[in-house]
Amino acid sequence: MSIFASFCQAVFGFLISLLLVYNLRMSSFLPKSIQVLIEEFGRLPGIGPKSAQRLAMHLLHSPESRTHQLAEAVGGLKNGLQFCNVCWNIAEESLCRLCSNPARNQRQICVVEEILDVVAIEKTLEYKGVYHVLHGTLSPVDGIGPEQIKIEALMERVRAFSGHETIKTDVAQPTSKVEVILATNPGLEGETTAMYLMRLLKPLGVKITRIARGLPVGGDLDYADELTLTKAMQGRMDYV
Amino acid sequence: MSIFASFCQAVFGFLISLLLVYNLRMSSFLPKSIQVLIEEFGRLPGIGPKSAQRLAMHLLHSPESRTHQLAEAVGGLKNGLQFCNVCWNIAEESLCRLCSNPARNQRQICVVEEILDVVAIEKTLEYKGVYHVLHGTLSPVDGIGPEQIKIEALMERVRAFSGHETIKTDVAQPTSKVEVILATNPGLEGETTAMYLMRLLKPLGVKITRIARGLPVGGDLDYADELTLTKAMQGRMDYV
Repeated sequence: MSIFASFCQAVFGFLISLLLVYNLRMSSFLPKSIQVLIEEFGRLPGIGPKSAQRLAMHLLHSPESRTHQLAEAVGGLKNGLQFCNVCWNIAEESLCRLCSNPARNQRQICVVEEILDVVAIEKTLEYKGVYHVLHGTLSPVDGIGPEQIKIEALMERVRAFSGHETIKTDVAQPTSKVEVILATNPGLEGETTAMYLMRLLKPLGVKITRIARGLPVGGDLDYADELTLTKAMQGRMDYV
Repeated sequence: MSIFASFCQAVFGFLISLLLVYNLRMSSFLPKSIQVLIEEFGRLPGIGPKSAQRLAMHLLHSPESRTHQLAEAVGGLKNGLQFCNVCWNIAEESLCRLCSNPARNQRQICVVEEILDVVAIEKTLEYKGVYHVLHGTLSPVDGIGPEQIKIEALMERVRAFSGHETIKTDVAQPTSKVEVILATNPGLEGETTAMYLMRLLKPLGVKITRIARGLPVGGDLDYADELTLTKAMQGRMDYV
């Protein structure tokens, strides 16, 4: 029993020392400026301590001009940037390039979660309307309610078209029906947000559509999950 | 046949248009400063276009002070940094903290591939010798020969101890045999480098050791590959 006790003690001691060693900040063996950069990189999303180390080492081995370019790009990121007054997309003036473009149909509003979703849809070169960036989704678990995202701004925008309020954009076309395309992601939170918006928008009498959910191009029926396949069947269209 | 031909033409046209859309730089829909930052992030190793976008968007949504901290950390990385004259580790003076530390055994030289390997070994708190950073491994495929990495510097260092040349460090202890620990990674290139170094160093009459290859602590015999298990069996030691 005494052997077992001393063995347990040794194992315990070993584990404690392992923890201690682990908690020692590894970067204390490196010069201060590298430590600072590793910490800064480590704060970015999706970059763990190991990646942060590797990035710092990469920059250490790259020429001075490269690090200066990166530093300037980071430092100058927000210079002259603001959110568009109408659609909350990122903009260089009070109106973004899309909202101020008279060729765009201002009566077709595509509601997306993030700025990058605008980029994704723009890449298709198919959509000719404008956007509304929510900057998030409803997520009661994370304490994100309708007030935390740009829902009220969207409602004001749509109400303006319905004649309840004056129109804010100079370039609105007074013809054709207003359409709100709900293009939030087809996940739990995106669907919840889309459903919430639909209930808010319905009384205003605008046309409300939701982006199609179905099989991705190049996808495989055999590998699709049941929900996607159900949506694909429900959303089937006449084949012309 | 004409239906098939027109079908083929349509498919071909579709593919070409897909390629065109794909090649369009997506960032052209974003303001210039964000485009620049996405490009700069995308040049870092292990960060693809998607991650670069996400990082840029994260910084866009974070407070001004955070982006400035990161910019300063990147810009100030190389301020006052140089490589150690003796071991090629990163240093704030002409000698690194380890080479200038009289408590370190200057006659025990651990040869590693990268600066981060020094950090990894220092974290164990077990090693009391000094290092030599090769800054790479021999890799004929990538055109990296003995001249491209710090092998000649290592040879000079070891030769100095053997009395062929004058000793460069002020703090060398003239007692005990010189030991060179080959701690390159146990992969193909690391093993090649270790073997090459062994052949160069042997005529100098120094003690040459190689770090043990075997099962990692917490590892599973059942999941170990044959080579690791072979090395573990070959490297077995008296159990005390």
